[in-house]
Amino acid sequence: DPSLKVFTLNSNKALAEEIAQHIGISLGKNSVMRFSDGEVQINIEESIRGCDVYLIQSTSAPANEHLMELLIMIDALKRASARTINVVIPYYGYARQDRKARAREPITAKLVANLLETAGATRVLTLDLHATQIQGFFDIPVDQLMGVPILSDYFQDKGLDDIVVVSPDHGGVVRARKMADRLKAPIAIIDKRRPKPNVSEVMNIVGNIEGKTAIIIDDIIDTAGTITLAANALVEQGAKEVYACCTHPVLSGPAVERIRNSKIKELVVTNTIALEEEKKGANITELSVAGLMAEAIVRVHEDASVSTLFD
Amino acid sequence: DPSLKVFTLNSNKALAEEIAQHIGISLGKNSVMRFSDGEVQINIEESIRGCDVYLIQSTSAPANEHLMELLIMIDALKRASARTINVVIPYYGYARQDRKARAREPITAKLVANLLETAGATRVLTLDLHATQIQGFFDIPVDQLMGVPILSDYFQDKGLDDIVVVSPDHGGVVRARKMADRLKAPIAIIDKRRPKPNVSEVMNIVGNIEGKTAIIIDDIIDTAGTITLAANALVEQGAKEVYACCTHPVLSGPAVERIRNSKIKELVVTNTIALEEEKKGANITELSVAGLMAEAIVRVHEDASVSTLFD
Ligand SMILES: Nc1ncnc2c1ncn2[C@@H]1O[C@H](COP(=O)(O)O)[C@@H](O)[C@H]1O
Ligand SMILES: Nc1ncnc2c1ncn2[C@@H]1O[C@H](COP(=O)(O)O)[C@@H](O)[C@H]1O
Repeated sequence: DPSLKVFTLNSNKALAEEIAQHIGISLGKNSVMRFSDGEVQINIEESIRGCDVYLIQSTSAPANEHLMELLIMIDALKRASARTINVVIPYYGYARQDRKARAREPITAKLVANLLETAGATRVLTLDLHATQIQGFFDIPVDQLMGVPILSDYFQDKGLDDIVVVSPDHGGVVRARKMADRLKAPIAIIDKRRPKPNVSEVMNIVGNIEGKTAIIIDDIIDTAGTITLAANALVEQGAKEVYACCTHPVLSGPAVERIRNSKIKELVVTNTIALEEEKKGANITELSVAGLMAEAIVRVHEDASVSTLFD
Repeated sequence: DPSLKVFTLNSNKALAEEIAQHIGISLGKNSVMRFSDGEVQINIEESIRGCDVYLIQSTSAPANEHLMELLIMIDALKRASARTINVVIPYYGYARQDRKARAREPITAKLVANLLETAGATRVLTLDLHATQIQGFFDIPVDQLMGVPILSDYFQDKGLDDIVVVSPDHGGVVRARKMADRLKAPIAIIDKRRPKPNVSEVMNIVGNIEGKTAIIIDDIIDTAGTITLAANALVEQGAKEVYACCTHPVLSGPAVERIRNSKIKELVVTNTIALEEEKKGANITELSVAGLMAEAIVRVHEDASVSTLFD
């Protein structure tokens, strides 16, 4: 279908290439460079008039650079008469700033939604939003894919025995439940509590983990503080071994070192965020969401629902 | 007037401090930091409910970081019930991407205008826009200040004899004319021409410069290629000495080295863009726009015109 075009920017070219391959087309031609003073310089190098454009970009670190590339490219596509501009955001940055946790804070996840619409996005396709409510920040259609099936299938294929799926906090229980259903396993919850102010947190575990293989699941692993403490608590309190997994490996600051020094046997992540070379290997396994995203793009383009992808 | 509050972000704190001093108030309290993964973390640390807020930030390099700080702070101010959000942008970045010079380019200067309005800006105060047309990219009031009076006064006070004001290109003639009027001097124009394709440009000078003190004026000096070639051509073709000046010292890449190795006796700039320490000194002189901007803020706040500032 010549009206379907896939473009990408600088955040995650390898993933975009893989998605295009799955669809069976080549990536659209564009250049994304910097002027001498660091301003983004974008040029689209083929006609896209009347086309349905799928623009792949994670707003991962450096988030401001990647977001501005995305907004500027959307502007260029709009002015070059694209019919629709479907923004494919495997990792939606700023998602944790989704509410005023304190007085006079911004709600940057909503701001970003407004900016994308203002620039000219007509649809959003994303994966595991930190809060599902972010869908409602948009006035354009938003389709959300799920990482759980890919992560679950990987552990299924490993043939692990006597699994318990662990949510590292109360906010993640729904996700853990989904994975547990797929693996036909029970769940447990890490119930972090501070007994008194200025006393360090206690990792209380709700659920039976004794002698079991624990798989901790989260959406984002950033500095890896929570997850490594949880893993160590699980082992101390009787788990046989501990795996961890997440959709979005932000892995900033001390994350990789913490993971390598923790009781986590293997951390399984997806490629929504491109991992720097030095973060790869050791006990970090990367799964690809390219097939899932390619399938979703084709369905959206054919005006079909993406929710059937999870059946 | 307790309803007038001035805030700033990370681009140019020294200028903002100076502006606040001129107005006779303290800067509002806010923190502008980065989360571990580099995302902007902003918090406003005093009530601004019902206030007229003046938020000072140049979208200078790193332009994307400074622009995102600005947008996120506007969002926070809006949600904290500011009455008006007056964005003071001494240097408006992305101004050179103000038209499609080639097919399928973005018009980022317009995108930025839309983003600022979407975030919640209610008015813009800026200085020497690269193209005056950018005012029309906004649907909110835009006041534009001029650097020419400050630059002209400096040269006036030097007591130079037999001046000619030089525009480095055809686009800058109006600005050169304004400075020449103030200095009661004639103008000259550098008429760059490429005699044949693939032959280097010739610096033809229109106007009499023989034995005169030339002052080249531009709005932005970025890599300083044009201005240093112009200076050398002026000296070769008979000028006694050459000064250069601009409002916005972008000075990226080889700029400072080029200026130091050129025939420019002194480069005079303003502080709309904070100069890194290593760019200061030698033959670069920095003038302050703080008094002008403070005066303009007070007038806007009193609902008076800023155009009288140029009388
Ligand atoms: N990039 C970030 N890194 C760490 N914390 C963040 C980030 N963005 C927002 N937050 C904070 O994370 C909290 C929300 O996280 P959560 O409770 O997991 O939804 C809020 O207090 C935010 O201020
Ligand atoms: N940051 C930048 N650095 C250098 N050139 C730029 C920048 N932004 C835009 N341009 C280009 O500068 C040209 C416009 O400059 P001008 O003719 O001086 O208005 C256009 O061709 C733009 O593509």
